[in-house]
This record gives sequence, structure tokens and C-alpha cells, in this order.
Amino acid sequence: MQRDRNKILIDSVKRLLRRGALHHLRKIVNKTHAADLSMVFRALSLSNQRILFDMIEAINQKGVLFSELDEDTFLDIIKEMNIDDIVEILEQMPTDDVADLVGRLPDDMSSTILEKMEQEGSEEVEDLLRYDDDSAGGIMVPDFIALKEDVTASEVIESLQKEHQDVEMPFYLYVIDEYERLVGVCSLRQLVVVPPETPLKSFMTTDVFSVQTSMDQEEVAKIVASYDVLAVPVVDESNKIVGIVTVDDVIDIFRQEATEDILKMAGVGEEFVETKSIVKSTRIRLPWLFASCIGGIVAFFVIGRFEESLNEFVYLAAFIPVIMGMGGNIGTQSSTIVVRGLATGRLLIRDFWPVIFKELSIGLILGIIYGTLIGTVAQFQYGTSALAISVSLAVVLSMSIAALVGSLAPMIFARFNIDPAVASGPFVTTSIDIISVYFYFHIATLLLGI
Amino acid sequence: MQRDRNKILIDSVKRLLRRGALHHLRKIVNKTHAADLSMVFRALSLSNQRILFDMIEAINQKGVLFSELDEDTFLDIIKEMNIDDIVEILEQMPTDDVADLVGRLPDDMSSTILEKMEQEGSEEVEDLLRYDDDSAGGIMVPDFIALKEDVTASEVIESLQKEHQDVEMPFYLYVIDEYERLVGVCSLRQLVVVPPETPLKSFMTTDVFSVQTSMDQEEVAKIVASYDVLAVPVVDESNKIVGIVTVDDVIDIFRQEATEDILKMAGVGEEFVETKSIVKSTRIRLPWLFASCIGGIVAFFVIGRFEESLNEFVYLAAFIPVIMGMGGNIGTQSSTIVVRGLATGRLLIRDFWPVIFKELSIGLILGIIYGTLIGTVAQFQYGTSALAISVSLAVVLSMSIAALVGSLAPMIFARFNIDPAVASGPFVTTSIDIISVYFYFHIATLLLGI
Repeated sequence: MQRDRNKILIDSVKRLLRRGALHHLRKIVNKTHAADLSMVFRALSLSNQRILFDMIEAINQKGVLFSELDEDTFLDIIKEMNIDDIVEILEQMPTDDVADLVGRLPDDMSSTILEKMEQEGSEEVEDLLRYDDDSAGGIMVPDFIALKEDVTASEVIESLQKEHQDVEMPFYLYVIDEYERLVGVCSLRQLVVVPPETPLKSFMTTDVFSVQTSMDQEEVAKIVASYDVLAVPVVDESNKIVGIVTVDDVIDIFRQEATEDILKMAGVGEEFVETKSIVKSTRIRLPWLFASCIGGIVAFFVIGRFEESLNEFVYLAAFIPVIMGMGGNIGTQSSTIVVRGLATGRLLIRDFWPVIFKELSIGLILGIIYGTLIGTVAQFQYGTSALAISVSLAVVLSMSIAALVGSLAPMIFARFNIDPAVASGPFVTTSIDIISVYFYFHIATLLLGI
Repeated sequence: MQRDRNKILIDSVKRLLRRGALHHLRKIVNKTHAADLSMVFRALSLSNQRILFDMIEAINQKGVLFSELDEDTFLDIIKEMNIDDIVEILEQMPTDDVADLVGRLPDDMSSTILEKMEQEGSEEVEDLLRYDDDSAGGIMVPDFIALKEDVTASEVIESLQKEHQDVEMPFYLYVIDEYERLVGVCSLRQLVVVPPETPLKSFMTTDVFSVQTSMDQEEVAKIVASYDVLAVPVVDESNKIVGIVTVDDVIDIFRQEATEDILKMAGVGEEFVETKSIVKSTRIRLPWLFASCIGGIVAFFVIGRFEESLNEFVYLAAFIPVIMGMGGNIGTQSSTIVVRGLATGRLLIRDFWPVIFKELSIGLILGIIYGTLIGTVAQFQYGTSALAISVSLAVVLSMSIAALVGSLAPMIFARFNIDPAVASGPFVTTSIDIISVYFYFHIATLLLGI
């Protein structure tokens, strides 16, 4: 339904653009929600995106689009805009989004923009730019409500009416001591149900989770998810609250991290490349295939060493694909399970040996099943039991080793704090290929007595 | 940091269990947050999980653990429990979680439980059980605040103090007309900042998004994410509000859908198997490898058809791995990009031809680059240009076809409303293998004039 609605919207926008019905288009653009508009945007050419963007009247609407746009599209649009207009848009946006955008700009442009922004806003942005993009500090918003513990419920409500209008998610009120250290939290809901004169300290929860500015965004996201909170406060080294990470950012983090993991496992870098040009995409995908190319060439030399065996029993070659394929596929299964298990916390690095043992066992069992099956085919086809046994053994070995390497590599990477997703890309597949082919020919040469 | 804290916690629990220091353990268990406790749980054997579970004193704590447990562990624990105790725990839990759990139980057990539950609770659970697990109806909570439009802010606050204590996320107040149809929404925040006598209708937002009970959970999640809301109301056919889907459930949906996609792409079913026994995991993984096995056997017969060529030029065999490997890897790249692009909405089904064209172009360019490279190696090694050209051409063809099939398959699947993630599993890899090997030998046979 949602998809249909968007499809209808995209179609009508395209039709109006073709017809040049700009007046009508302007009306549609300005009554569409920014989230839907950003969906429409992605379906348009750059020149049409510009036409649409210029039609938007509400500045905060432009701001939402800014943060929704792909990096490349954003840079393209902003390049032709007036700096003052950019500043005006940025000033309406949440500070964390501004910091994200400004961080992507060329240095000279970003400093010009920061100079032109109102002092308070630009200071906040600069504060955020100090933190690593992927850390709690980099994703937090500096807008939150922090109050002393002797403030009463009615005073809080009064202050909500007068100030804190720019606070994005005022669902938690953080309670601080005289040194601005975080000591408690209470929810907006609690606030409205207590008698007006109750001081915060008598109904706040002192058991408040917080994260350090340097914590990795994925860790932060996991905390928000596992405690089912709408926001988590971010504190500096002295436990002073400096920002909050809200649940909507957590959703983005999970989606982004899942995409990154998937892309890394397939060997296509970390960033989504489909929105980039053919040349750019090719350049990103090229190096990842290099591992597989080198691996293939190594396999070629390995087989070359067994040229004699091949000369005598040429049908040995016919089993190369099935042995490589079975090893490759079970290796992918194992590495995927381990990588995703580690990412979701269902597997822990501390379970190193049990995980490896289990994968190896599964590889062995499945190897014996499929080895027998494929060996039987070989026996029927050629009637040579030495060949059939060689093929069966090669499948068993290839699948066991693949399951072992497929689980071992990401576990070892994770233990050394390297992203395990990288480990299960082309590197693993390729090394399994080489090992499989080598063992296959070695066993066959021995058993066939060549 | 978080990870370290959990590690310390798990280590001490295990130590105390080994030592039988149950008194001390009970203390720790009862002061640990349920989210941390569920992490500890996963690291323990089933018998130890039971010991820990029995130690928990707070019933709502037990409830949180119930919904955090893996399906198998949950069934194991519940099997040995008294029905009345189970009912007591379930009655403290949010209705959507109860429906989830009850849906997993054997029919006779679930009906006994529903009978024993308090009427109001069990009716709500039964209502939820009517909906498909993966639909908005299946994931919504029926606890929300819906008020008529002439109710004033102060009356709302009063009602918040008296009732609605069980509402999980009372951040939005939904406004309904006399037929219980959804007409507006206002936030708790707005409520506290308007003068007490203001009626809801004068400050509510009438532009309220809602979803139908039948909408797929992934669609619901995308809506919540793109509009940055904390909850979305769920309505039935007559636009009557029947529940809400909250942001914490949306996070779970995204993580679950990402995991499902990743597992399907690797050919390991849909559910996370690593927590299952070796026998169960083997059974789940077995059929997916069957596609690859059949494919391998087909490739074997394909190569068999070219036995003559192989007899004459035995070194043809040595290039099988590199040709299969290059095709397989670029095919995985293409299918991964398309599957993830469709899942995140960065690619649309309507972009069918541009996507296919782009992937094919990239496949061709990368094919020419790596074909030249690998052909050069062949030339140097054997000095036969006919072989070198065959190998180069085979790589170009294999990589182009792989990119084409890799992008085409998920796009076609998506167009026919079949989950594209399934399409990029072993099926695609295997068919690419067969096609590559066939073209390779065909070209070589032609060019080498066999």
C-alpha cells in the first residue's frame, strides 16, 4: 500500500515534469511529506531533482531533504547553491544532521558555512565534528533537557513551555548534580502524573544507563535496543552529560551496519554503490575481485602440478566444479552464520572453540552425505572405485575444511578486533577453492597410483 | 565497555554456578537488568539456565526473559513449569509479546493458558493471534490512549494519573471521533505546554499516518523509520484504531529482516541456526547445498561432453577454477547489491532495465580487465594464443553473464513478489558455474580447432 502510494506519487511527479506543468508540480511538492519527497527524489534525474528542490518553500522541508539525500546527490545540489541559502537551511536542522552534512563538504566550504552560522549553532556543530563519525559523540544530538534534582514537576512543565522548544525528543528529563554530572532520569509521563510540587529527586530513577562519547555507534545502538529506551544519554570522561542518542538514529545505525556487513561479505566495499556511476561502481568492485583472480591463478598452478595425473585420467577435471562448489557454498554458510551471529550478539567471541567445533562437525556430516552421493555418481559413470573414493574423500575434506575456515576466519578476525564481515568475503571463498583443488588432486594421484 | 561488563558478569555467574554459591548468585541475578540477564542466559547450558531462572524473584523480570529467550530455550524451560506459574508471568507481559510466545506453543498448551488467563488479557491475546505473525496486526500492541477530540488537556492528564498505567509508550495520544475512527494525534509534550483547558481538537495534528492491520511488518517498519515517529497507529478496515506499533519493535523488525536476508542469501534458511543442535543445523543446511550438488553434477556432465578437447589439451582443466571463481564472485556482488538495494529502498523494482543494464556494463568492463589479465598469464605459461584468447573470452563471458543473472534473478523475483534474497543464494551461484564452464569449453573447442 505504502509502496503503491509512493509509486503513484513518483509517476505523477514524472508526468508533470515531462509536461512542464510546474505550477501543479509546485503544489504537490509543497504538500508532500519530506520523507515521501525524498523517495520521489531518488527516482529522478539530477536536473529534475534540482527543479523540485527549488520549488520547496518551507525551509525545514528542505532541511529534511538535505539529510535524506545520498551523499553524491547532496554534493551536486549544494554545489550550485548560494552559501547564505545553505546556511539558512542548516540552521533549521538538528545539530547532529548538520554535523554529518558539514563533515562531508570540502574543508573551505565547511569553514565558510560554520563562520556564517549563528554562533551557538556553529559551536555545537564544531563540538560534534570533534568526535569520530561512528562514535556516540558523532551521532548524538546536543539538545536535551537536564535539570537539577530539587526542581519541581510544575517548574519543569513551566520550563518546557518557555524554553527547550528545539529539543527533538523531550521524553526523558535528565537530572544532574551541581557539577552537571548525570545522577538520574525521569520520563515526561512520570512528570504529568505526580503532584505538581514534587521535586525531581523524589521520583527520578537513579539507575540510569549512559554511554561514553567514544563508544562505537553499533554498541550504543545495541544498548538502546536491549534496554528498550527511546534515548540514551552520552557523557564525557567526567560523567557530565553532553548529548543524547535517540532511537530514530539507532534505527538508521542498525540498517546501515547491516548493509555494510552484507556488502563487505559480498566484497563490494562498505558503501552502497548502486547509486554511483558505472565508472565509480566498477572502481569500487575491482579490487575485491582481485583476491579471487589471484586465487584462481594459484589454483591454476596447483592443477598444473598435477598435469601428469590429468594426462592419464582426464575425467578428473570433470569433478573440479562440484568439489569447488560444495566447499564454496558450505564455507559461505559457515562464515555467514558466524558473522551475523557476532553482529547480533547471538554468538560471542568467548564461544570460540564450541563454535568452531560445531561448524567442523556439521561440515564433516554434510561432507560425508554429499561425498557419498557424488562418489556414487562417479562410480556409475566411470566404474572406477579408486576414482569414486578419491572424489568422495575430496568432497568430505573440501566441505570440512570449508566449514572450518569459514567459521575460523571471522572468529579470529573478531578476536583481533578486525571486522569479521571482511573475513568472509572473497578471501575465504578463494582460499577454500585452492585448498579443495589441491587435496582433490593429491588424493586422486595417490589412490589412482599415478 | 558494554561488552566488557557483560563478559565480567557472565564469568562471575559461571564461577558461582561451578562453586555452587547459590546464595550469592541469587543476589546477583536479582539485581541485574533483564536485558543483561538474557545475555548471560545465552552463555549458559540449559540446566544452568533453569537454575538461574528459578532464582528470579520479580515476575516482570521473568516476563522480560521470556520474550528475550531463543525459541528452543523458551520451549525447554516452559515444558517443566507449572501452568499457573506460566500464566502468572504472561499476565505481566505486554500483549504483543504474550501473543508471540503463545503462538509458539503446542495448541493444547496454548488453549489451556488462554483459558487460565484473566479474560481481558486473553481476549486481547486471541485478537492478536488472528493476525499474521509478520503483519502490522501481529506485531501491534493493543494498549494505547485514544480520546475524543473535545477532551481537554487537563482531563487527559487526569486520566493519565488514574488509568492507562499499563500503556507501554504513552508519548502519543490518539484522537478519535464518535465511531472510534482515527482523526488526529497529539504528543505528550504538546499536552503539557498548552493551557489546561485547551481541548485536544485545537492542538492536535490531523495529518496522522496510520497502517492497516494486514500491512507487512517490513513496510510498517519502513514507515516508522522514514517519518521518524515513535509509534504508528494500526487501524482496521473501517479506520478504527486497534493498536500501535512502537519504535522498539521496529528496531527488532529491521534486525530480524536483515538477518533473514543475510541467511537466505547464504542458503541457510531464514532462522538463525547457530543456537540449534548440530543435528538440527545440519538438517536445515542440507537442502540448500543440494542445489549446489546438482549444479556440480550437471557441470560434471557438461565437462564430460568435452572430454575429447580435454584429452588433446589437458591444461584446459587448469583454468576451470579461475573462470568459475571470477563468475561466482561478481555474481555475488551483483545479487547482493540488488537484494540489499531493494530491501533498503535504494533500488526500486521500477528501475528494472537501468539496474540490469548497469550491472551488465560493469560485468563487461570488469570482465575485459580480468580477462586480459588472466589471458596474459595463459599466454606466458603455454605460449598458445588460441588458448589465451579462449580463456580471456571465457572470463569476459562468465563475468558478464554472472552480473546479468545476479541482478536479473532478484529483480524478477521481486517483481513477482517472491523474496529476492532467496534468489541470490546457491541457485544463482550454481547456475552461473554451469553456464561459465559450458561457454569456456565451447569457445576453447572452437578456437583450438578440436
